Amino acid sequence: MSLELSTPPPTVIPQKQTASHPLAPVTREEIQHAVYLIKSIWPANTEFQFKVITLEEPLKAEALAYLEAEHNGRSFPHISRKAFVNYYLRNTNKFYEAIVNLSENKVASNFILGANVHGAGDGEEILAIEKIALEDEAVQAEIKKLQLPEGTVVTVDPWIYGADGVNDDDRMYQCFLYLRDPANPKEEDSCHYAFPLPISPVISTETMTCTRVDLLPTGADHTIKPTQPYKPRPANEYVSEYQDLRTDLKPLHVVQPEGASFTVTEQGTSTILEWQKWRMRIGINAREGMVLHDVRYDNRSLFYRLSLSDMNIPYADPRHPFHKKSAFDLGDVGAGIMANDLKLGCDCLGSIYYLSSILSDVAGEPMDMPNSVCIHEQDAGIGWKHTNYRTGRAAVVRNREFVLQSIITVANYEYILAFMFNQAGEMDYEVRATGVLSTQPIDDGVDVPFGTRVHPGVLAVHHQHLFSLRVDPYLDGSVNNRVVFDEAHPMPRSDFNPHGTGYVVKETVIDKSGGYDLDPSSNRTFKIQNVSSRNPINGKPVAYKIHAPPFQHMISDKDSFNYKRAEFGDHNIYVVKHRENELFSGGKYTNQSRGGTGVRSWANRNDSVVDEDVVVFVQFGINHVPRIEDFPVMPCEIIKVAFKPVNFFDKNPALDVPPSSQAFNKSTGLNSEEATQHMQSGATVTIGNQGEVCCPAKL
Amino acid sequence: MSLELSTPPPTVIPQKQTASHPLAPVTREEIQHAVYLIKSIWPANTEFQFKVITLEEPLKAEALAYLEAEHNGRSFPHISRKAFVNYYLRNTNKFYEAIVNLSENKVASNFILGANVHGAGDGEEILAIEKIALEDEAVQAEIKKLQLPEGTVVTVDPWIYGADGVNDDDRMYQCFLYLRDPANPKEEDSCHYAFPLPISPVISTETMTCTRVDLLPTGADHTIKPTQPYKPRPANEYVSEYQDLRTDLKPLHVVQPEGASFTVTEQGTSTILEWQKWRMRIGINAREGMVLHDVRYDNRSLFYRLSLSDMNIPYADPRHPFHKKSAFDLGDVGAGIMANDLKLGCDCLGSIYYLSSILSDVAGEPMDMPNSVCIHEQDAGIGWKHTNYRTGRAAVVRNREFVLQSIITVANYEYILAFMFNQAGEMDYEVRATGVLSTQPIDDGVDVPFGTRVHPGVLAVHHQHLFSLRVDPYLDGSVNNRVVFDEAHPMPRSDFNPHGTGYVVKETVIDKSGGYDLDPSSNRTFKIQNVSSRNPINGKPVAYKIHAPPFQHMISDKDSFNYKRAEFGDHNIYVVKHRENELFSGGKYTNQSRGGTGVRSWANRNDSVVDEDVVVFVQFGINHVPRIEDFPVMPCEIIKVAFKPVNFFDKNPALDVPPSSQAFNKSTGLNSEEATQHMQSGATVTIGNQGEVCCPAKL
Repeated sequence: MSLELSTPPPTVIPQKQTASHPLAPVTREEIQHAVYLIKSIWPANTEFQFKVITLEEPLKAEALAYLEAEHNGRSFPHISRKAFVNYYLRNTNKFYEAIVNLSENKVASNFILGANVHGAGDGEEILAIEKIALEDEAVQAEIKKLQLPEGTVVTVDPWIYGADGVNDDDRMYQCFLYLRDPANPKEEDSCHYAFPLPISPVISTETMTCTRVDLLPTGADHTIKPTQPYKPRPANEYVSEYQDLRTDLKPLHVVQPEGASFTVTEQGTSTILEWQKWRMRIGINAREGMVLHDVRYDNRSLFYRLSLSDMNIPYADPRHPFHKKSAFDLGDVGAGIMANDLKLGCDCLGSIYYLSSILSDVAGEPMDMPNSVCIHEQDAGIGWKHTNYRTGRAAVVRNREFVLQSIITVANYEYILAFMFNQAGEMDYEVRATGVLSTQPIDDGVDVPFGTRVHPGVLAVHHQHLFSLRVDPYLDGSVNNRVVFDEAHPMPRSDFNPHGTGYVVKETVIDKSGGYDLDPSSNRTFKIQNVSSRNPINGKPVAYKIHAPPFQHMISDKDSFNYKRAEFGDHNIYVVKHRENELFSGGKYTNQSRGGTGVRSWANRNDSVVDEDVVVFVQFGINHVPRIEDFPVMPCEIIKVAFKPVNFFDKNPALDVPPSSQAFNKSTGLNSEEATQHMQSGATVTIGNQGEVCCPAKL
Repeated sequence: MSLELSTPPPTVIPQKQTASHPLAPVTREEIQHAVYLIKSIWPANTEFQFKVITLEEPLKAEALAYLEAEHNGRSFPHISRKAFVNYYLRNTNKFYEAIVNLSENKVASNFILGANVHGAGDGEEILAIEKIALEDEAVQAEIKKLQLPEGTVVTVDPWIYGADGVNDDDRMYQCFLYLRDPANPKEEDSCHYAFPLPISPVISTETMTCTRVDLLPTGADHTIKPTQPYKPRPANEYVSEYQDLRTDLKPLHVVQPEGASFTVTEQGTSTILEWQKWRMRIGINAREGMVLHDVRYDNRSLFYRLSLSDMNIPYADPRHPFHKKSAFDLGDVGAGIMANDLKLGCDCLGSIYYLSSILSDVAGEPMDMPNSVCIHEQDAGIGWKHTNYRTGRAAVVRNREFVLQSIITVANYEYILAFMFNQAGEMDYEVRATGVLSTQPIDDGVDVPFGTRVHPGVLAVHHQHLFSLRVDPYLDGSVNNRVVFDEAHPMPRSDFNPHGTGYVVKETVIDKSGGYDLDPSSNRTFKIQNVSSRNPINGKPVAYKIHAPPFQHMISDKDSFNYKRAEFGDHNIYVVKHRENELFSGGKYTNQSRGGTGVRSWANRNDSVVDEDVVVFVQFGINHVPRIEDFPVMPCEIIKVAFKPVNFFDKNPALDVPPSSQAFNKSTGLNSEEATQHMQSGATVTIGNQGEVCCPAKL
């Protein structure tokens, strides 16, 4: 169904200004304008639940023409501003996708989406679901059987229902119930994941009612037992009041007395960042969070667009309803919309600039998301060093990094997501997984091979974290790139290799779109190359290589919904030919999705990808086998993907970093004269406390 | 030949004091005492070249008894102090290994070592070799053919000869010749690796003469051409005077106003470090550099001994003499003896304590090695975080790390070696590879598959860096540990797993000593377990898991000298049953070694290793395929191995870290009120320079 707007709306809402750049996320006014235009094509009393109001990015060719004009001081081509809008007619399963042409003041397209296409969750809905679950009579009847102490608070974690093909055409939530510590019911920040309950209501988003109450298996098999009275358990709190805090950690401050080395130029919703020869444009949208465009180093373009494309977290417990736990946190909710409001001195250390964003709520109102991204520099140890042993001269520079960090909370879990740039032309994408394990009840004395008991009565099930980073390269100003991989192979023995020590590096060009894998046994290394730009010294094509850690791919079998839905989960690298609107490697609509719309499907077009407009999806992940040390909140597990120049420059690009010196770095020496004097002769010297040297005692 | 000392020496040199701890490296006085005792068994006019004078560590059982007494306040058992000594009779190939019992004032054993057993290089020798190479007439004749500009300085990189079984029974050096920039001959720090020459003298250490002058192949095959006149080439300097240095990097200081959080107790040559529940003893020896003993967390023992055991760097060029380039930097020279004298404000940032060491020179004199290790804390980002979306409360702690760093220079290359500890009971071992590529000449227009042209006329050959970390566990006070590996496998489809999503983790116990490999496709993870100590919550054995990155193992074929010598190079993990004196996984004597004395040989004993006194060697590495960006000095390439507790504690051990707060961290916000006010409404705001906000300009 298309509802092309036939007549202009009667009045136009005041529009203070359009965004300053074609790649800028939609502004506050554009959100209002888009909503106005959508509403104008419906009867006046229609109620909406807006799921997405975001920039419909210009065609890549249009945007690149604009960027080239921008960098070369030429006049800008006209590019219409468009918004992409997803909405439900409230309390129905009628889900629409619309493109609004803001520049032309019209709804360019408006379609109702088909069966098994669902919108993401949203905060208002999630809070409503929690309430409905708790107020349902059948749920209350089950809770009553627990015979909880007076005052006990039951909490609800609504989960995206997932998909298994069993009566799951409608959009639903599967809720998991927990308790705050019954012995301390007033503690609102009690870690309820230490008190999982075996009761799991299912809520329909169409009727907003509880349609089913599942009981959970709590033993080693899938036996469901009637709900039993609650058995008191110890709490396991993570908030600081319940800890015997360490008292011996001294402050460590990062001080930049002359300010930061970067500049931030905010142009409305789009921001230019410049630091140490890097220049990029950053915007924040609801789904991907940070999106970088037009990433350049020393005025040479590297990437047209970079963003986290998707993530999937399938769980290992095969029993109903746990087998459906398979979160797509970006598509099912959104990294931008879940971004933490970062606080000075808590989430970043040093001199910090915060970027805020403007997203939208279910009513279609602009919503301020303060401090979604923190921007800072950090010292990352030594960048390079060489000591000439003949003269004793040590040349050493430190490695400064420029970090763009965002932290998202997805119910129990946290992800700390960061783009990091250094002075050697290298870029890292870092994910830190932290937060709280999603737990479920388990009977005493039971061990299962698909999870770990992390607390009495608490099972944390194994799960995979599968991430997919989208890289749209523009190496040295060309969209026509190729992806190759290098492998090292031993030379056969011969007159040339008489001692069996020789080895060669062989480059293989990826000619067809598809999924490709790492192979540490041959040091297989993927590179993005622009063969039309050659290194002046050695004639090799300029390239960036990808260092991504190997990981266990999707474990679920190939006929499973998990495998079909997370189309990126089966290969380290996907190479596809660029097409507009192919941003999300698990498909545009991930909630209860059925597959067929993600990167594997695009790759199956079998396009030629040699010196074409290629897009690379880099996958990485963790198989999280919980340790007890991961509870009640887990120490960060860190994964990094690195992009490094290969024959892109003509020498180490960090050669011009000023030498590391005490005059610049102002470090503090803790060795005193006295300590140094005695240390060689067998005395006992203790430093500590305020760094002073305790009285040395001759042994 | 054994020369057991039959009678005590006539006089005893004054010995000011013995070391304070049985695991302390030899003291200044002990070095003198050992040398005195060795000399006393030889005729008075004997000339020595001392290669090693180091602590002969006590038997592990003795040392553990001592440590237990130390921690429990019991009286100490007596342990004799012993020194291990290697020496040549000067200008001979007669190489000795002696054990000196310092406590009993006698040489306990003294053997001449057999054929193909050679001592390490030493600084005095290397400088002498350089001189001999340059003064040799045949070398000078070849240099003359280069027709170098007046004043040009030729430099020599003496290389350990390597081994190929071809007339290499005697100890030799293979030298590679370079030029300082002929256009700038007074620059002593000119990067001579940009000017490699095709002349390679071989020097005998027995006769200290040049025995052969090899000419090097400079084309794509192994053709040797007569030495041609030098063709002028551009320089490629790394020292700062030759750079157009960046001017826009602002200082970043790490300040600890209340001092550091660690304490250092120096007991002569041994030092106790305490930080955030960690406690360990550190000593420095010539070969391994840092050695950690008795590593504990919260008074629970984890490791008896930790050190870098070996490294090997085999090169890919199969042509003579390059095929012999295969450095064992610890055994052939030594990490402690090559340790840089670290400088405040250059090599570490923040509040730094330096440890010095006392090693020995070829004359057997004690030699001060100042500032071999720097000790400091660093901020490592967020440690853990969780935001309760219901209350909005964010609980966040930062991750402080405690770093013990040493930097070694091995002619062209640098390695930055660090043990790093955090507040979650985790330990990392980090290697940063930096320094200058070892280069060789190549003709213009020639490309070879075993190297990269990194500068006109300069070939950097591919090479592997293979590292081996020795881990002697003592988990929760037991030497009897086992090594197991976990793998994740899909469950077969069944009534229990009807949707094909389930997976299980299966533990396999390693029962026999041997080499074992990673397998990312099953998430294979190695753990060291003490089954006699069980987690109080889930009953699992306490364990530490090993996270080591997969890497390409030794590429040289199994019949090659490279393979036979670097016995650790073929597997990610070696598990062996502990035996005294098995510290070095490539064998005790690596210089021109023939294999058969390292970890593969020990593993081949096929010992039972289940709940035995096991030692684990963890291998990791890089296949370094040079990029032009790695020249003239390479940006650090970082590899990390992590050790993490698994069911060792009963919850996240970093739960008691005080919350991250602005009061403690004192960060600086760069957003001004004005900037914040304008950013939402489409103005252009630029911050930069000293962090101030430039005048916002309405667009």
